[in-house]
Amino acid sequence: MSKIDYYSEAAHGPHEIFDLGNYQLESGVTLPNARIAYKTHGTLNAAKDNVVLFPHMWSGTPKAMEIFIGEDRPLDPRKYFIILPGQFANGFSSSPSNTPPPFNGGAFPRVTIGDDVVAQHRLVTERYGIQRLELVLGWSMGAEQTYEWAVRFPDMVKRALPFAGTAKTTPHDFIFVRSHEDALKSDPAWDNGFYKHQSDVHVGLRRHAQIWSVMGLCQDFYNKEVWREVGFTSLEDFLHRFWEAYFAPMDPNNLIWMGWKWRHGDVSRHTGGDLAAALGRIKAKTYVVPFSRDMFFPPDDCKAEQKLIPNSKFRVVDSLWAHFAMFCMTKSDRDQIDSCIRDVLAEPVG
Amino acid sequence: MSKIDYYSEAAHGPHEIFDLGNYQLESGVTLPNARIAYKTHGTLNAAKDNVVLFPHMWSGTPKAMEIFIGEDRPLDPRKYFIILPGQFANGFSSSPSNTPPPFNGGAFPRVTIGDDVVAQHRLVTERYGIQRLELVLGWSMGAEQTYEWAVRFPDMVKRALPFAGTAKTTPHDFIFVRSHEDALKSDPAWDNGFYKHQSDVHVGLRRHAQIWSVMGLCQDFYNKEVWREVGFTSLEDFLHRFWEAYFAPMDPNNLIWMGWKWRHGDVSRHTGGDLAAALGRIKAKTYVVPFSRDMFFPPDDCKAEQKLIPNSKFRVVDSLWAHFAMFCMTKSDRDQIDSCIRDVLAEPVG
Repeated sequence: MSKIDYYSEAAHGPHEIFDLGNYQLESGVTLPNARIAYKTHGTLNAAKDNVVLFPHMWSGTPKAMEIFIGEDRPLDPRKYFIILPGQFANGFSSSPSNTPPPFNGGAFPRVTIGDDVVAQHRLVTERYGIQRLELVLGWSMGAEQTYEWAVRFPDMVKRALPFAGTAKTTPHDFIFVRSHEDALKSDPAWDNGFYKHQSDVHVGLRRHAQIWSVMGLCQDFYNKEVWREVGFTSLEDFLHRFWEAYFAPMDPNNLIWMGWKWRHGDVSRHTGGDLAAALGRIKAKTYVVPFSRDMFFPPDDCKAEQKLIPNSKFRVVDSLWAHFAMFCMTKSDRDQIDSCIRDVLAEPVG
Repeated sequence: MSKIDYYSEAAHGPHEIFDLGNYQLESGVTLPNARIAYKTHGTLNAAKDNVVLFPHMWSGTPKAMEIFIGEDRPLDPRKYFIILPGQFANGFSSSPSNTPPPFNGGAFPRVTIGDDVVAQHRLVTERYGIQRLELVLGWSMGAEQTYEWAVRFPDMVKRALPFAGTAKTTPHDFIFVRSHEDALKSDPAWDNGFYKHQSDVHVGLRRHAQIWSVMGLCQDFYNKEVWREVGFTSLEDFLHRFWEAYFAPMDPNNLIWMGWKWRHGDVSRHTGGDLAAALGRIKAKTYVVPFSRDMFFPPDDCKAEQKLIPNSKFRVVDSLWAHFAMFCMTKSDRDQIDSCIRDVLAEPVG
């Protein structure tokens, strides 16, 4: 364990806070003093037409998306005003780990992708007066938020770029994400979410990491021992120092609440369960980009949704890192992802 | 829970017993009064040249393989003498669940695929005086035993038919099988294998079933709701009445010990780690038959091994049931599998 608290600016850099006040969640529960923590890069121009919104993935924070921002990159902060909103339950925005009673820990209300996106909508419109977004993009749960944006606010989203995620969670995703939540809950120290310190649940966090290692990557990755290329010396070394180390400092409840949110993602709740109708609403120029060996979001599952999106293209990022191509552990992964961002930004949009 | 004990002839039909006496395991430990329980169908002919050996999969017993035997099927008991040997730890052969102290329950020694195959070799040679096998076939762990037979006793195996399994466990298989074992062990009631009754560990058995449901089938299976075709009414209904019900009556230790055996399967331990050398030993006419959507043994993993087997063919069974095509829930699965058995038996072999 690091001596720095994981959910701290010391570890994740400075955030800004947007206060939502008494925020009514999709569940009907009102969360008092709700907030989202976010980061920005670049400067909002006078016309307010240079905005990119880039929500983050499950288990992440806005910091995770900063690896795609740079003056030599498509997300150039000299050109764009890039907002990295933190999703609920990420440990910085309102979360089980930082909310006072009665909604502390295991009593935190269920939150949804819709709750995230409505809060982000308030942030961009109320704080910044932004009416249109040049691009909304995201990976995994970030893709879920991207789809929710494009379906819910079709006139605001000019371009959408969901990487390795779906607009409606598939049943297979539903059961594997739940199995991850259950791995954390299986530790008696989890105690229905009312442990004292996150490290009390270290057995559950390790169990969860081991299960993640199975579907999080893919057969080819392990067959080819790709972990060697990034400095690990054996399979067990990789399991401990990559997977267990990644999850060890995190808060189990935060992961569980984000997981619940993930597996209930479904844009078709706006259209009475009709996914085609929901995706048919999208006006954004959309690139649907799965990763070739992703066991969570196989290209076929993404292709099925792309066919329902009017003005869309289908591209595949080819990587041995499966769902984790977005970590950009190889130059090839980074270049392919950057190309998608560059190309979609170059698409002429009315 | 059934009122009939699961590991009983009332539930699984009559078995014969082959006593191995003090049986030295590959680990160096000697298991006293070791035995394998087995079934046979058909009659051994005078020339002893009509023998088929059909070991079973993880979690199974010889009964599971009986669905492939019939007078209208390639495995016709009027023609062949079919031996269905029970693997160690299956609950009928020597197992954690049926062995007296000091090797009871959690103290049962580790057993290997090699231990199974050497015991089966003694059965066929000592009890029956059989010198050659027309066919050795098996599914999953049965495929592991098939490969072990073909590599270890190349002059005895005329034909080999491994379905949906590998000769050397891949690292991905290793970690997912271990995650299944860990799900059982995560239940405090498991108590290092020294519970009183298997149903004491029902929470672990349920957890294990839920995790199995993720990789045991595949995305397409759940997307297309194939469970409807076999009488389930919802995803949750399927998870409870198929997956949990399947594992509920089983003994957690038996599953764990078979799992350990599975993930340590590796014919290359006969050749100092050289898989090509090991598979190069095979003299049997071999059909390597993966299942198209199998997430445990993807066709590519099987193809890589098939290329190393001198006199082999590669065929793929196409099924939405993924690894469980062998359950023959559809006529198509049964017909494709029967075709493989029929065709390999028709192969002229010297």
